[in-house]
Amino acid sequence: MATSGAPHMRRRIAALSLAWWRFTRTDAAIHHARTMGTCANCVVYDASGNLEDTQEPIHEMMTDDVVHARLLAAPVNPADVNAVQGKYPSAPTPPAVGGLEGLFEITKVTNATRGWSVGDKAIAINSTHGTWRTHGTFASQGALVKVHPETDVAFGATLKVTFATAHTMLRKYFLETCERYKGSVVVTGANSHVGRATLQLCSAWGIRTFGTARDDREDWKELQQELTELGGGTDMCTVVPSGSLRDARRASSYPPAVLCVDGVGGDAAREAIAILADSGTHVVYGGMSRKPVTVGAGSLIFRDVSVRGFWMTRWYKEANFSEVQAMVDDLVHLHREGHLVAGAVVRRPLCAESVREGMASPPRGTKLLLVPQCD
Amino acid sequence: MATSGAPHMRRRIAALSLAWWRFTRTDAAIHHARTMGTCANCVVYDASGNLEDTQEPIHEMMTDDVVHARLLAAPVNPADVNAVQGKYPSAPTPPAVGGLEGLFEITKVTNATRGWSVGDKAIAINSTHGTWRTHGTFASQGALVKVHPETDVAFGATLKVTFATAHTMLRKYFLETCERYKGSVVVTGANSHVGRATLQLCSAWGIRTFGTARDDREDWKELQQELTELGGGTDMCTVVPSGSLRDARRASSYPPAVLCVDGVGGDAAREAIAILADSGTHVVYGGMSRKPVTVGAGSLIFRDVSVRGFWMTRWYKEANFSEVQAMVDDLVHLHREGHLVAGAVVRRPLCAESVREGMASPPRGTKLLLVPQCD
Repeated sequence: MATSGAPHMRRRIAALSLAWWRFTRTDAAIHHARTMGTCANCVVYDASGNLEDTQEPIHEMMTDDVVHARLLAAPVNPADVNAVQGKYPSAPTPPAVGGLEGLFEITKVTNATRGWSVGDKAIAINSTHGTWRTHGTFASQGALVKVHPETDVAFGATLKVTFATAHTMLRKYFLETCERYKGSVVVTGANSHVGRATLQLCSAWGIRTFGTARDDREDWKELQQELTELGGGTDMCTVVPSGSLRDARRASSYPPAVLCVDGVGGDAAREAIAILADSGTHVVYGGMSRKPVTVGAGSLIFRDVSVRGFWMTRWYKEANFSEVQAMVDDLVHLHREGHLVAGAVVRRPLCAESVREGMASPPRGTKLLLVPQCD
Repeated sequence: MATSGAPHMRRRIAALSLAWWRFTRTDAAIHHARTMGTCANCVVYDASGNLEDTQEPIHEMMTDDVVHARLLAAPVNPADVNAVQGKYPSAPTPPAVGGLEGLFEITKVTNATRGWSVGDKAIAINSTHGTWRTHGTFASQGALVKVHPETDVAFGATLKVTFATAHTMLRKYFLETCERYKGSVVVTGANSHVGRATLQLCSAWGIRTFGTARDDREDWKELQQELTELGGGTDMCTVVPSGSLRDARRASSYPPAVLCVDGVGGDAAREAIAILADSGTHVVYGGMSRKPVTVGAGSLIFRDVSVRGFWMTRWYKEANFSEVQAMVDDLVHLHREGHLVAGAVVRRPLCAESVREGMASPPRGTKLLLVPQCD
């Protein structure tokens, strides 16, 4: 409140910058595109975090190395909100179209566009593209990953961030390293979207889980039951209030807890680390408590516990396309086999107002899904 | 002060236990051994942490699979103190002879004891043997590692804990993983014995180091200069007071800090983690500040920093003998080439009183070295 005029100036510069960005899309081009009916409605953010609806012409010229696609749905993830607020490390320089993931349907191909047909469904995996757009032109190789046409829209639209994070973390820190050990997994913030995805994947793979969540809510019993079922039922999954993990571990006959998948930090991380077995790994993918992870020297030295971080965006940058395709294929397969279901979503029209509303009062326990109003 | 009689009872039980342990060494055997002149003087601790001088007969019967040896020197390390206090995870069940390392000289072999000659120098590597003893009988294979006969006594006596810890940590977390990266190393508590060993090893291997230590001491300037020289001089090593690491990093042209070797925890760990490069590793081998290591979710997720622990005892348990021999050979070689010198030591007679004194007022910046009074 008492700061100098700097924020004001920043806002003005950002507004000018946005105006300039829109100008470069040329009114002539947008007019032409509108006339031809091939203009994308987009939600754009500027350097001050202002959100605006804008339009972007779709390239009319089709070449063999691009496909056209229309959006089916794109979520508003915490990472998207951070990007809008200028707090996400790998977000494109604003002004930029928001959205790091989305499910699209292919609308236009050439005879030479190998591998794609009109009507195919695909996930955008190039995170700098901006998925809050009704339409987009994508490179035909490397920008989209095809998914089964019967993939549920909410599942497909939230696969690249939520389910992929759980899948890749578990593969990297459990399946590829601990398989012989046959241990169990601890999930903090088990009611989060990644938490739920982790419980479901562990259940699908026969891994027992301890889930924790805050019980300062009226519907705790229902939540506990719902999460337990996602984790495979009471023989496979134990869900307890934060602070009760040590007792739950003592009372349980589950194998040693070799991995904690932590999206919370703070106290939740501390109690999870306390029950990790020797040489267990604590992997942090989020910090919902906004508190750091604290670990005693004794746990590190004598119990060989290690604390790691996991960032799905880094994985996408480092993976080759076939690895991404294999991961997506596996998730869609598990989804179609009934092992994975999308979390609860709230559908809203694709516009700046929807995003603003979602950011101001995020829908508890649900994910905001932006869907085009008309196609 | 206000607790019940439990500690008193524990002391009584411990005293009885110690008496029983000594009784099992049989007075007759000790009398015989004394008569034959082959009785070891030992420092023993019981379950209450009481220290006592005692005597233990040396087996007269020589077999082909044992050698006899006399102690040249054994240090009192922090881990030894923890063992006496019942706080060290891998210490033998008390009552037990204290001491986890020591330099010995071979005094008796048989014709068939392969590889050993009278006069050889060797380090005891079986940590449950107890090195606070004037004499010992060792398995001829696997219990002792031979060192060059001209190895400095203080260096040889402190090799197995101090120098081996620095050597193995650097090898595991730098040489074997970061060699191509050519990064620099951060050393917290650089004035500690492991800190000094790390600076010297990095200098020998051409690795640049940032060292930090508390400057709340009159001789800070001398300490800073001494540590800088251990690290290879001002081109190779920057030593700054705790709290100044970030500025030192900014002002420096050293390559990215890819590893922190941390024996302190708390604030020192926090500031070291802040300057680690992406995918850097923070390895904790001690917790001198008695405060945990705290790391933000952002450092873990977006910068891919990992926090690990290192326990030399675990390495010894998991390594095979040739790996241990190779590590010792390399350290002795570096020592004989002038790259490694022992830290400051204070020599005291091998007796319970010396250990008690050292534990009550540990000699600042020096290591207590127990030496037999007469041989």
